[in-house]
Amino acid sequence: MINFQTSPEQYKHWKLSFDGQVARLSMDVQEDETLAEGYKLKLNSYDLGVDIELADAIQRIRFEHPEIRAIVITSLKPRIFCAGANIYMLGTSSHAFKVNFCKFTNETRCAIEDDSRHSGRRYLAALNGTASGGGYELAIACDEIYLVDDGNSAVSLPEVPLLGVLPGTGGLTRLVDKRKIRRDRADVFSTLAEGLKGKRAKEWGLIDDAFPTSKFQEAIDARVQAIVKSNGGSSEQVGIKLSPLKIESTDNTRDYNHVSIRLHRDERYADLTVRAPEFDLPTTPDEIQKLGDAYWALRTFRELDDALLHLRVNEPEIGLVCVRTEGRIENVLAVDKTLAANRDHWLVREITLFMARVLRRLDLTAKSLFAIVEAGSCFGGNLFELLLAADRSYMLNDPDETVEIALSELNAGAFPMSNGLTRLQSRFLAEPRKAYEAFAREGRFDAGAAEESGLVTFVPDDLDWEDEIRLAIEERTSLSPDALTGMEASLRFAGPETMDTKIYGRLTAWQNWIFQRPNAVGPNGALTNYGKPTKAQFDYQRT
Amino acid sequence: MINFQTSPEQYKHWKLSFDGQVARLSMDVQEDETLAEGYKLKLNSYDLGVDIELADAIQRIRFEHPEIRAIVITSLKPRIFCAGANIYMLGTSSHAFKVNFCKFTNETRCAIEDDSRHSGRRYLAALNGTASGGGYELAIACDEIYLVDDGNSAVSLPEVPLLGVLPGTGGLTRLVDKRKIRRDRADVFSTLAEGLKGKRAKEWGLIDDAFPTSKFQEAIDARVQAIVKSNGGSSEQVGIKLSPLKIESTDNTRDYNHVSIRLHRDERYADLTVRAPEFDLPTTPDEIQKLGDAYWALRTFRELDDALLHLRVNEPEIGLVCVRTEGRIENVLAVDKTLAANRDHWLVREITLFMARVLRRLDLTAKSLFAIVEAGSCFGGNLFELLLAADRSYMLNDPDETVEIALSELNAGAFPMSNGLTRLQSRFLAEPRKAYEAFAREGRFDAGAAEESGLVTFVPDDLDWEDEIRLAIEERTSLSPDALTGMEASLRFAGPETMDTKIYGRLTAWQNWIFQRPNAVGPNGALTNYGKPTKAQFDYQRT
Repeated sequence: MINFQTSPEQYKHWKLSFDGQVARLSMDVQEDETLAEGYKLKLNSYDLGVDIELADAIQRIRFEHPEIRAIVITSLKPRIFCAGANIYMLGTSSHAFKVNFCKFTNETRCAIEDDSRHSGRRYLAALNGTASGGGYELAIACDEIYLVDDGNSAVSLPEVPLLGVLPGTGGLTRLVDKRKIRRDRADVFSTLAEGLKGKRAKEWGLIDDAFPTSKFQEAIDARVQAIVKSNGGSSEQVGIKLSPLKIESTDNTRDYNHVSIRLHRDERYADLTVRAPEFDLPTTPDEIQKLGDAYWALRTFRELDDALLHLRVNEPEIGLVCVRTEGRIENVLAVDKTLAANRDHWLVREITLFMARVLRRLDLTAKSLFAIVEAGSCFGGNLFELLLAADRSYMLNDPDETVEIALSELNAGAFPMSNGLTRLQSRFLAEPRKAYEAFAREGRFDAGAAEESGLVTFVPDDLDWEDEIRLAIEERTSLSPDALTGMEASLRFAGPETMDTKIYGRLTAWQNWIFQRPNAVGPNGALTNYGKPTKAQFDYQRT
Repeated sequence: MINFQTSPEQYKHWKLSFDGQVARLSMDVQEDETLAEGYKLKLNSYDLGVDIELADAIQRIRFEHPEIRAIVITSLKPRIFCAGANIYMLGTSSHAFKVNFCKFTNETRCAIEDDSRHSGRRYLAALNGTASGGGYELAIACDEIYLVDDGNSAVSLPEVPLLGVLPGTGGLTRLVDKRKIRRDRADVFSTLAEGLKGKRAKEWGLIDDAFPTSKFQEAIDARVQAIVKSNGGSSEQVGIKLSPLKIESTDNTRDYNHVSIRLHRDERYADLTVRAPEFDLPTTPDEIQKLGDAYWALRTFRELDDALLHLRVNEPEIGLVCVRTEGRIENVLAVDKTLAANRDHWLVREITLFMARVLRRLDLTAKSLFAIVEAGSCFGGNLFELLLAADRSYMLNDPDETVEIALSELNAGAFPMSNGLTRLQSRFLAEPRKAYEAFAREGRFDAGAAEESGLVTFVPDDLDWEDEIRLAIEERTSLSPDALTGMEASLRFAGPETMDTKIYGRLTAWQNWIFQRPNAVGPNGALTNYGKPTKAQFDYQRT
């Protein structure tokens, strides 16, 4: 089982250090500290374990060190920044694992860009050696890229020429969409195994500058100081500590404080339940800061994040997640009221930005999602987003019970999807006015009102409820999981596209395809034969 | 070998008739007239041969019958409009063929939408029986959809539940992006094998209206008359005849009037040469109309279109196309001058819209494209788009020879890509001013000027030329064809996304993946087992 929880004291592959408003994140991969057997992490190549630490470090900087204004990502290995994802790891992994690995690393890259965009921290890739494949992809997730000019160090995306697959972390899309490299140059660069060095790399826009070895550190320091000077926020912000999550699990259960998973393995579905706060309902930033990671909104979404990652990677046979909520809806709405009222406070901002990232992780999870609204549910405000993220929703229509959903201020824009729209906007693409009308109608919606407003899919009455849910689950889990993954990815992101949706929707799909093809993973495929004396042999038919 | 040339006299599956300003296109698929062995086209199901006729009919309406304002697409079979792509055909086709088939049918759907958007003809899907799968996808490519309400007829996308694959003709994307069906309803609809009938289909936005059998014809006629009344253009436009293309071919050559293909099979590449006009350079619409399909711009792009389809489907081993041009560049530019000056004339408009579609077909061709600019080349104006569409370009830098490229008015917007940008805009995403500067600098560009302006990739001198081209070809054709297909698709469409780029880039990639998976095409896969007594068995791991 893969564990997504870690902390700096436990890091094996990264050193995280702080100096005033500057954080330094140095890669020093321990080649034997792998997540699985059968490969060594040479040359700062990485597996999922290395990226889990990177994701943790970025998350901790945001919550534990809000004073940080610039982050330098560099390497402690001589002459190599990072050789990218480990090829032998890829060669020995299952298809499903490869795809989930690429998705998680993409989410980590997007988290860097989210921090830069919304919290104003600036990321510098200080490439003190060659950055190839995922190493260069990590660099282009940063705001600025500097390469040492030592006559040897280069940036490269060698996947196509060496491995017969695509750069898997959004590399191609970030080349032409983020750095806007001319597409013919991107074509040349992406087919050049050895990559490009200082002068031409700069001319083509692949890096921002190159400095000779003797001046490299000095140049980076100068740039960092310039950033801190112009970008220096209040250094009075004091961070909070992210403690380890408390998780209790058995074969078929996984319980956090406010989140629970119940696995129905034979039926290939899981219940994912999120509980409303019962107490600890602070109304001021000071109280929230004092509660720290015990504050419901932060703790619950950290738990939800871990639960999603767990389901993705450790429970591949589970094809459907029934999302449920329990508790007092007014308590959930009270949280939103506090978050909205204090939205300019750094911690409140970080918490809502994090909630938005977790909800995007949910959108991007390759499992069917049904939201189940019953008596005792609390799909309000931030938890109503779970319903909106679901592929469909069922709400009990029983006049003898209180069954309600509710909107809050946060549904109006605090949690944008990867495509830049709110989930309500996405829902009402054909009738944008319906989103407005739902907001305008303050208060709770019972099943009738919810259906009339277009907020839920089905509202079975209490006589049909059990059967309808059971049949819907049975039907869903009987369908081809591959077709469902493709269908859900296509239907969840209607409307505009962004770099993020391109990366997930387009690149991931291409990579899925290529990762399956004999030219990559067959006995004569390039990925299979990497590093062996044998050479790849291709079926040259173009599709 | 599959032949893409046809004409109404040869149609086996469609009846095309005209009545004033209304065309009627009636599907009546002959089940034994298949393109390959091993299946029967029952229930108006289709194979590529049926879609080649549909594409031809739409093309002919535009050129031969410009007076037409409304097109009714319907069926001559009782109780069935169209059952979609033939499952047994899909089950027995190679992966490459399936993907190319889906791409061509998508291009035909986009051609319908292009006609509606740019030439104002209105397409009505008159569903006098059930429309399922590709049958309903054809309907949603139309502007309006009417379904007979006979208690039986339905619209459906049964691919996911029945076949374990996706609707292959843009169905999912058109559902949520074009018709803007609410995504939870789209989810339900796309998993419902039997689809939805009149009332609910209308309520959910899947059709525009439903009429009882007894009133169906009358209602369609009334709607058509209303369209013609409000949409009636000049009926004085007289069409031109599209005659069969003259094609001479041997094992390794294919020659049209202005286009030639030379196949280098052992090296897996082809030279595709387009020749400039030598005479027939009309300057008025009357002269163009008189020349009709002999006019260079129309004939050459019809030839180019056929050449691309031929290379895609009949030459799968060819991975690289070297695009070359021959002739007087001033003659090509003279054509553009005439087209630009007479852009409001119906025939000139149809010709440039057609040229734009052919160029988009080139963008969407899964082969590497190199543009080779030598002495005697004529990459100017409309032919310069071939260079811009290429993945990279090589221009000979020889002071002793005249080697030139040139822009024309048409490069400024006459030929938008699928993403809505011109190819120059796409090229200069990072520096939009460069597109403007290239235009502002009137006249021809030699190699030095072309490189400085960013218009070409490489400008080798005459000493290196032969070696550089040879090595580039060798290197390109040695790479994994799958990785190249994914890479090129990712790099060619930077910048904004449209419904079209979503369909091709995202949906095609998902479909590619799903079409390869054992859950679809393995011995126990759903596609393999369709219609057999055995039932599909899935590996339920989600990726």
